[in-house]
Amino acid sequence: MLSPKAATSNFSDEDCSAIYRVIHERRDVRSQFIEKPIPDAVLGRILDAAHHAPSVGLMQPWDFLLIENPAVRSQICDHFREMKEHADIYNGERQALYRSLKLEGILDAPLNVCITCDRQRTQGYGLGRQSDPMTDLYSTVCAVQNFWLAARAESVGVGWVSVIDHDRVKRILAIPSHIHLVAYLCVGYVSEFRSRPELEETGWESRTPLRELLHFDSWTNRCQARADAICANDLGFPKRP
Amino acid sequence: MLSPKAATSNFSDEDCSAIYRVIHERRDVRSQFIEKPIPDAVLGRILDAAHHAPSVGLMQPWDFLLIENPAVRSQICDHFREMKEHADIYNGERQALYRSLKLEGILDAPLNVCITCDRQRTQGYGLGRQSDPMTDLYSTVCAVQNFWLAARAESVGVGWVSVIDHDRVKRILAIPSHIHLVAYLCVGYVSEFRSRPELEETGWESRTPLRELLHFDSWTNRCQARADAICANDLGFPKRP
Repeated sequence: MLSPKAATSNFSDEDCSAIYRVIHERRDVRSQFIEKPIPDAVLGRILDAAHHAPSVGLMQPWDFLLIENPAVRSQICDHFREMKEHADIYNGERQALYRSLKLEGILDAPLNVCITCDRQRTQGYGLGRQSDPMTDLYSTVCAVQNFWLAARAESVGVGWVSVIDHDRVKRILAIPSHIHLVAYLCVGYVSEFRSRPELEETGWESRTPLRELLHFDSWTNRCQARADAICANDLGFPKRP
Repeated sequence: MLSPKAATSNFSDEDCSAIYRVIHERRDVRSQFIEKPIPDAVLGRILDAAHHAPSVGLMQPWDFLLIENPAVRSQICDHFREMKEHADIYNGERQALYRSLKLEGILDAPLNVCITCDRQRTQGYGLGRQSDPMTDLYSTVCAVQNFWLAARAESVGVGWVSVIDHDRVKRILAIPSHIHLVAYLCVGYVSEFRSRPELEETGWESRTPLRELLHFDSWTNRCQARADAICANDLGFPKRP
């Protein structure tokens, strides 16, 4: 158990370095999965990290569906392939690039994890959801991000598969209609983590400079001098002062 | 700059311990803010962590609006107070508990940060958004969670204020109508981080055991033996094997 005082403790420079490093070295993995199984203890720590995400009113609206059965994953993979073909709205070079992208590791990864949101769960007594009904979905996404970071710490890769039809996947997994599918993840140890996102490496898209995304007190106030002061270190792995 | 090999490195047991600790010791802070200003270098690291969240198609749909001006925060706070009164749908003891909850630190924290999603941003070329149009909002939530964790590592508290009307806050901050407000955060150093979520401490809601949230290959397969094996450590801070 956490001791009552544990949460008031600070993080050392070495701790901070590890925390920033996991944030910067997390990757959306599609191509580098290996077959090595994930021990239950490791999986338990990663899921427990997800379960300790913030949630609106402490609603904890999430469920975790762990899919190892190859027959089930094959059905999902067949569906993905249809979807990827169907979602090809690009032309010319962009189309060729789209077709060359590997967008999932459904069969390569030994584990798939579907993270859902039960929007009818009464835990939390609706606190915060009256003013923003999206907050239960957002809570579930925070759980996904915790899962992703904890997995990276354990050298386990995660890839979020977006190109799926939620209703079709829910039918394959017998997920009730009122449950919202938030994320379908491919999960497994990897041969390597790439140093940059694959979509950057392949030239699909590039990183926006942080200073272009900052506003001060009002949307229209961009104050470049202040943005430059804040972003003095934004080009590299954060250095401790 | 990150060296090309950096992302392939593993995390030591000490690194993992720090990463799990920040995930478990992150709190939704409302009451413990102090006036100590956040240095620009610290703020830069936290924002850069947010900016390194995963995003669909590498869309990076987020903007960060930093609100320090007390007059602007006062307008937001006045609005919040109206909203909190209005959102009181509870009766009896639950109503008394609701009214006693402190749900924001808009004026107590020296900084408020509004994180938005530009749903019309063309970066990423729509990859992944055709099949799930919510993914741009989800990407922005991943940025919020990275912000929250990096802040905790820096001993900076963050509270997500849900009880606001997005249109009203957008008008106060001159945010264009097509920009989606995802999170309004109160941000500042704190006197302490509580060992448990305040909503647990006050009795608003309790933590669900992780084992009750696990399913295997199909929603209807709960396999308690497997859930118990995975959750053998779920009651405490994760131990390294």
